[in-house]
Amino acid sequence: MRNSYRLMIPGPIEVAPEVLAHMSDPLTAHYGDKWVEICNGTVSNLQQIIGTTGEVIIVVGSGHTANDISINSLFNPGDQVLTLNNGLFGQRLADICEAHGLDQVILTKPWGKPFSPSDIHEAVTRHPDVKALLVVHGETSTGIANPVQALTAAAKEHGLLVMADTIASLGGHPYKMDDWHIDLTVCASQKALGAPPGLALIAVNETAWSFMADRRKPRGFMTDLQNLRHFAEVQAAFHPHPGTMPVNAFVALQKSTELILKEGLEATWARHDRVARVVRTGVRAMGLQLMADEEAACANLTVIMADDQFLPQAYFDFMIEEYGMQVGLGLGEYLTRSVRIGHMGLNANLEAVVPCLVGFEQFLRLQGHDVPRGASLAGLE
Amino acid sequence: MRNSYRLMIPGPIEVAPEVLAHMSDPLTAHYGDKWVEICNGTVSNLQQIIGTTGEVIIVVGSGHTANDISINSLFNPGDQVLTLNNGLFGQRLADICEAHGLDQVILTKPWGKPFSPSDIHEAVTRHPDVKALLVVHGETSTGIANPVQALTAAAKEHGLLVMADTIASLGGHPYKMDDWHIDLTVCASQKALGAPPGLALIAVNETAWSFMADRRKPRGFMTDLQNLRHFAEVQAAFHPHPGTMPVNAFVALQKSTELILKEGLEATWARHDRVARVVRTGVRAMGLQLMADEEAACANLTVIMADDQFLPQAYFDFMIEEYGMQVGLGLGEYLTRSVRIGHMGLNANLEAVVPCLVGFEQFLRLQGHDVPRGASLAGLE
Repeated sequence: MRNSYRLMIPGPIEVAPEVLAHMSDPLTAHYGDKWVEICNGTVSNLQQIIGTTGEVIIVVGSGHTANDISINSLFNPGDQVLTLNNGLFGQRLADICEAHGLDQVILTKPWGKPFSPSDIHEAVTRHPDVKALLVVHGETSTGIANPVQALTAAAKEHGLLVMADTIASLGGHPYKMDDWHIDLTVCASQKALGAPPGLALIAVNETAWSFMADRRKPRGFMTDLQNLRHFAEVQAAFHPHPGTMPVNAFVALQKSTELILKEGLEATWARHDRVARVVRTGVRAMGLQLMADEEAACANLTVIMADDQFLPQAYFDFMIEEYGMQVGLGLGEYLTRSVRIGHMGLNANLEAVVPCLVGFEQFLRLQGHDVPRGASLAGLE
Repeated sequence: MRNSYRLMIPGPIEVAPEVLAHMSDPLTAHYGDKWVEICNGTVSNLQQIIGTTGEVIIVVGSGHTANDISINSLFNPGDQVLTLNNGLFGQRLADICEAHGLDQVILTKPWGKPFSPSDIHEAVTRHPDVKALLVVHGETSTGIANPVQALTAAAKEHGLLVMADTIASLGGHPYKMDDWHIDLTVCASQKALGAPPGLALIAVNETAWSFMADRRKPRGFMTDLQNLRHFAEVQAAFHPHPGTMPVNAFVALQKSTELILKEGLEATWARHDRVARVVRTGVRAMGLQLMADEEAACANLTVIMADDQFLPQAYFDFMIEEYGMQVGLGLGEYLTRSVRIGHMGLNANLEAVVPCLVGFEQFLRLQGHDVPRGASLAGLE
């Protein structure tokens, strides 16, 4: 029996061996010249990938932590914000806003359907006190990427602050924070950025800093971006965080982001796009449906509907047993109704997705479906 | 030139190779049977080391994160608490309380001097509205351990809730949460627990859960212990946290705590005590002074005063160059006036502290001091 399986879930993902190896480097001090160099190098790589000249605050935690810190720092209880909910992580963003006592206008759409600029215009017209838009870019539960560029443009017509959760998209699906005028970006280490879980990051532009400058106090210590910025500035040359940071996790993230930049950001996006199209085309050629509208599909993962044609758990088990690969089951009410295949980072390669596709058609034939051999490869030359 | 140095700072510490290796294990999913087994095993080990049957909530973050979450969860702005400040981390605890808008009664003592039960009685007599006592057990800036057992007994006479920060003590210096009636314990992975940095933990007894039950809402999402408990309960069998946890960091912590329990908690404490006495006796025999009162010395580290007898930076440099060992400089105003040697976990062994001691006397002789060869070994048979 295998002890581990190739992780084809939509994060954490397979991590490059040279990245993973750094996690077991001899421990070094969380202060001093060498540490500052690691911090600054990691931040610089992230700025390039996020597409911002703004500050990037790295925190120990998951993407949830970074969303929680951002919402805590930006808003006061009672502030009215517009939250877009078309998946589990849109819902979670709303849960976090709720946990901070915000007065939310929550727009909902069926899973798999993206929001459009007109949704923003209509909502703000009905709710003119809305101060900010909160949107999930890559939605891991549905496989879509909300069109954050267009949504932000609409929000900016009404003077809204825009916060984007790019946890499942950044590094694979195109994203340009500054060019698109997004004010705050949240991400985490373990998806298309290609590092192990444990770090999250928050990129903040000047508009967002100004926005939070006069927010209420107190706001907590580790959850207050202004406090974290204070330490980053005052202790910049020696120890730019209030607490002890996991040095090796930074080194791994620095390395994984360096690999992205070495390939080139545009080339990385193109690779993700190509592999995602191979997956989507193959899935359709097997007669299956995708949860995401094609024009809104996220390049990092694909969610496949079971539609009474197969049992997701059975495909999951088949892939574990026959291929040693772990795919994801659906989330929420789609647990027994969909399968999620992650194809980001190292998994955005044919050697990773071809076995998932071929395994799928093999599985379907074993279940009695009439799927021609090679149908799943329709997206390949 | 060496690429890394044996870490004799008071945390992070040298980590056992078999613990560190787990950080580079192939990544596995943050949900499912195997993950739940890892979580439960880690919590069970920690409960034994903390000495509690209460719940242990593990969070991604540093000790600061856990202190911040605990204070956020326990108190409302304006609540009056008694905070003990006799070192940098007592001060930091007060800073965190301040960041949550608490009405603090802060008792201060000179660095190196422990608090006593009479301090508690006097303070509560003067401030009868105080609801809770917040105390740092092992103070990494001074090398003392505040007598939390006696302080808690005093606080309990007045019905106070007691929160103890054991970040620098737990696993090396004796601590018994339930026996001593402490209500909430904060710790982190990277000191005497012997794992890399990146995880923190909060042990909560029923008194503390009751205490926070009727606190104000909202309280945030990842910073609300009641919310974290909710996920731990509702998703116990599959995914007991709201976000993606760093699986390998848990495996490493499970392994490092297993090593402590295999040695035996009492035996581990005795080893730390013995090695700490060897260090303190040797330091005194070289004619140097300790910052900590002897009766309050923490078993996990020793802070040595420079007293114009040597330059801390010069000893630091000497140990790096000649021994490949990194000791800690003083904190705060003692940066240039003291040296801190950590001797916890794997470093609570003669093979780690003897070179630090012998290096010290060698260094002092090179500086022109008349220290007999072997003086630093006065604590050995």
